[in-house]
Amino acid sequence: MGQLWIKEGLFISMEDGVSPFKGHMVVDGDIITYLGEKAPEGLKEDVEVLDGSKLAFMPGLINTHGHAAMSLLRGFSDDQKLQIWLEQKMWPMEAKYEDADTSAGAALAIVEMLKTGTTTFVDMYDRMDKVAAVTEQSGIRGVLTRGVIGLCPEEVQQEKLDEAIAFAREWNGAANGRISTMLSPHAPYTCPPAFIEKFVQAAHDYDLPLHTHMSETIAEVEQNVADYGKRPVEHLDQLGFFSRPALLAHAVHLTDDEIALLASRGASVSHNPVSNLKLASGIARLNDLMKAGVKVSLGTDSVASNNNLDLFQEINMAALLHKGVSGDPTAVPASEALKLGTAYGAEAIWQGDRIGKLKAGYKADFIGINLDQPHFYPLSDVISHLVYAGTGRDVVHVWVDGRQVLRNGICTLLDEEKIVREAAARFERLLQG
Amino acid sequence: MGQLWIKEGLFISMEDGVSPFKGHMVVDGDIITYLGEKAPEGLKEDVEVLDGSKLAFMPGLINTHGHAAMSLLRGFSDDQKLQIWLEQKMWPMEAKYEDADTSAGAALAIVEMLKTGTTTFVDMYDRMDKVAAVTEQSGIRGVLTRGVIGLCPEEVQQEKLDEAIAFAREWNGAANGRISTMLSPHAPYTCPPAFIEKFVQAAHDYDLPLHTHMSETIAEVEQNVADYGKRPVEHLDQLGFFSRPALLAHAVHLTDDEIALLASRGASVSHNPVSNLKLASGIARLNDLMKAGVKVSLGTDSVASNNNLDLFQEINMAALLHKGVSGDPTAVPASEALKLGTAYGAEAIWQGDRIGKLKAGYKADFIGINLDQPHFYPLSDVISHLVYAGTGRDVVHVWVDGRQVLRNGICTLLDEEKIVREAAARFERLLQG
Repeated sequence: MGQLWIKEGLFISMEDGVSPFKGHMVVDGDIITYLGEKAPEGLKEDVEVLDGSKLAFMPGLINTHGHAAMSLLRGFSDDQKLQIWLEQKMWPMEAKYEDADTSAGAALAIVEMLKTGTTTFVDMYDRMDKVAAVTEQSGIRGVLTRGVIGLCPEEVQQEKLDEAIAFAREWNGAANGRISTMLSPHAPYTCPPAFIEKFVQAAHDYDLPLHTHMSETIAEVEQNVADYGKRPVEHLDQLGFFSRPALLAHAVHLTDDEIALLASRGASVSHNPVSNLKLASGIARLNDLMKAGVKVSLGTDSVASNNNLDLFQEINMAALLHKGVSGDPTAVPASEALKLGTAYGAEAIWQGDRIGKLKAGYKADFIGINLDQPHFYPLSDVISHLVYAGTGRDVVHVWVDGRQVLRNGICTLLDEEKIVREAAARFERLLQG
Repeated sequence: MGQLWIKEGLFISMEDGVSPFKGHMVVDGDIITYLGEKAPEGLKEDVEVLDGSKLAFMPGLINTHGHAAMSLLRGFSDDQKLQIWLEQKMWPMEAKYEDADTSAGAALAIVEMLKTGTTTFVDMYDRMDKVAAVTEQSGIRGVLTRGVIGLCPEEVQQEKLDEAIAFAREWNGAANGRISTMLSPHAPYTCPPAFIEKFVQAAHDYDLPLHTHMSETIAEVEQNVADYGKRPVEHLDQLGFFSRPALLAHAVHLTDDEIALLASRGASVSHNPVSNLKLASGIARLNDLMKAGVKVSLGTDSVASNNNLDLFQEINMAALLHKGVSGDPTAVPASEALKLGTAYGAEAIWQGDRIGKLKAGYKADFIGINLDQPHFYPLSDVISHLVYAGTGRDVVHVWVDGRQVLRNGICTLLDEEKIVREAAARFERLLQG
């Protein structure tokens, strides 16, 4: 990769206090080296120049919770009670998964994410070496983790933990640092306390963050109280979970005390508004979490409960839903909503010093958006338009780690045609198998 | 217009009990004359044939509440308290409107609606002859009405009512019946009771339906009780409003008794979930309205409080929001959500016998959707995919009244380039004027 000069674009840096401006950006290799209103000087002779005059450029989106391989199950079961959805639909299909299903599902998910402007995704599933391989090939940035359900004999628990540790150690820092890893007990209700403590110890031993599902439904919170005499946040806290950097998916049902504890521990939350609505899990207290200083970000969850991976929809939903629920039209203004999907997302996965903003010295993870479309007229406020009128379908170019991975809407490193055919074929096999 | 044969498409008729099927459709002039699995017979020699093999076809979407001319104000004011938004932002800008602004805003809105699959829109504003002229030219179907605010001396009220009646009489049935009209006192809180009664009388005299804003905010309901000793539904009922076919926009804050009364009167409701969330007006009781048998449909409201006109977003929001709010994941299943935007929309505007379904004898108002995209794979359930993964951006072809008004994503009867430039220029003038 050489040098790239984005000329005369509209730049949305996501830096505090910096308004969108017409200007220029230079990328050298995988790093942004210049961003400003004036044309850059001293460029290399063979610099690649891209005319940005009809485009807006912003940091790539960061999707902080999902299960990419489940993309094969899009639309397979909707509008069902959670237990029917899970026990009669999802689990039987997932039980039939082979390596090739995981690869096919992950590839389909990554195609969809890149085409809608996501440059970094968090993924928790099994057969994670397959997901990591597709991540490496596709050019996307991933924070990957083997999610472990501990409802099994102790020796099987240990095997799974060992596998999770082996995966995390093997892939952490791979692909020029595009891949990082975590350790993930699936949830407090699927992992006994002693097993969660083993994850915490391993996270210390190998210097890894932790990720889990927490307080997604009222039922699981009540179960936690019945089983352990306390709610999930206190439970996890006492198991040492927050002694490590920790990312909590969902966090829908929280008390004021739990929110305060999460803030004081520096925990991160992945808010998944669409999945939470679709499964009727509830509506997270986003305004209160943000006010308390909890590091909140946005996730799609898998397409089985969404059913798409366009993070612009979560950004839009976060801006709309929490106004309506709180009765406050000033809640989650457009600029905050866009930060939830970019700068705050980066902080939530402890990468706020290198991605999530357009800034000299930061990784060149950014997207170009076609502004010359009727739904962006008049161009009164580009941030408002991206949040309230835009979708991932407006993204035309995507760069990750300095490499262009989407050009004019087409993935440059993946064979989209082959991937969608393979996904369709694997789904048919799952249905019949 | 001659004869059109859509060959080997996937058809979603929206008829009760009919699943999506692979088949054929024939259009003669403005009417669907055949829909079935078998290839049609006895076609004309010069029939136009369209290969539908990678497309889904469904009825065009019906947007039952909006203010098209306000599209010039997209993103001009967001994330504000309602009073500031209205009094300091919207009203001063609208006061500067000239005929050319109304024409420009309406044209921009219609371009956006056609490109996202809306074939029929309801519009309430002033200078409606301008909106009607663009409607006629664009090929879209419109239900148009001059909205009248009655906070003025009686003689000015009468002038406005006369203008509203004149507009309604002049344009009703125009453009081969594509344009129909209504009468619209703006809202119970902006029109004194005696003035509303005049609208009711005129609606009887000229055989027109009525449209109004109702119970959008708690404040206006409380004001109604303070001013008239009753809530808006009873108030309107006693003024005779429901003695005419009546379409009520918003209807957010309703008691059980009000819902029962609306059902017994056969009133129609336009549910505007995105606008209601964005302005923090509240969340309408969609599940209860549907259970009670009220004719519910979907509207975007104007882009000033949305900020887009993609009715697929309302369909998606209706399916998601009311699951989350009710705690019932089976609420508003995908098939019902899609009906809200099509068949139920047609019933809400009293055109259920001619639009809103694909059916022999119905008007040829329909859309073609590109299914060959990653976010529609695997193609397990096309209705689920359209509701939960699709957007208006997936629409490639649109026909209204048998005429193709969008081909490969481009409007056939409107100059999109000219319309967006004009919208931008008119907005600049409003800003400076």
